[in-house]
Amino acid sequence: MNDCIFCKIVNGEIPSAKVFENEHVLAFMDISQVTKGHTLVIPKIHKENVFELTPEIARNLFEVVPAIANALKQEFEPAGLNTINNNGELAGQTVFHYHMHLIPRYGKGDGLGVVWKNNQSDYTPQLLQEMAANIAKKL
Amino acid sequence: MNDCIFCKIVNGEIPSAKVFENEHVLAFMDISQVTKGHTLVIPKIHKENVFELTPEIARNLFEVVPAIANALKQEFEPAGLNTINNNGELAGQTVFHYHMHLIPRYGKGDGLGVVWKNNQSDYTPQLLQEMAANIAKKL
Ligand SMILES: [Zn+2]
Ligand SMILES: [Zn+2]
Ligand SMILES: [Zn+2]
Ligand SMILES: [Zn+2]
Repeated sequence: MNDCIFCKIVNGEIPSAKVFENEHVLAFMDISQVTKGHTLVIPKIHKENVFELTPEIARNLFEVVPAIANALKQEFEPAGLNTINNNGELAGQTVFHYHMHLIPRYGKGDGLGVVWKNNQSDYTPQLLQEMAANIAKKL
Repeated sequence: MNDCIFCKIVNGEIPSAKVFENEHVLAFMDISQVTKGHTLVIPKIHKENVFELTPEIARNLFEVVPAIANALKQEFEPAGLNTINNNGELAGQTVFHYHMHLIPRYGKGDGLGVVWKNNQSDYTPQLLQEMAANIAKKL
């Protein structure tokens, strides 16, 4: 895609701090460094989001993630690590080329904050079974 | 693992609302339903976190995620979707069997809130290159 900044990084038109590269995948430092060591993993082929990934692209991408996560763990010794992928502007996506964020975690107020609401009381086991059956029909 | 609630779900000792299952992977509704359609994807084999996943387990897990994301999109018509995986208590992990959250997004205040701090001003391109080279050495 002509105007995609991540395609330009793949092509070498824009510089990046590369962590890992193979035939299918590129990993490089996120310039925003939400926390120290914040790394992105992307497919070299342009796919906008998770909805567009083929099973093969998905396999090739995620197979390298555990090794990169372990390298971040060794290098920075974080207390934890989140992997996050945003699809759609409302979900926080700002670059429309699929990317998985690897974000080492160091403590409260370290740059990433995630708030989870628990809505368990709104969903009976029976309702969850019906929802699951409806999703499964779409697969 | 004897006391792992997700292993018990895999074994059928504890009921769950199953969305998808194959030889390697199980997907089921998260009982907390942070947003409507919130689904977990797990390897059937017990692995605590992303650091413990082998490349093969990772491949088999993520290859099914795009199809499940698309099924959620079709069923619930969200505006976006996040995939999130928490490793370590500090990163929000509460069940210590690897799981990827698929969280459809509907709007502000829909149950998930993620705050990203941008620390770009703290990291020069030169510093990022040095960090990337240090991580790469650990790979
Ligand atoms: Zn692109
Ligand atoms: Zn992003
Ligand atoms: Zn388990
Ligand atoms: Zn969880």
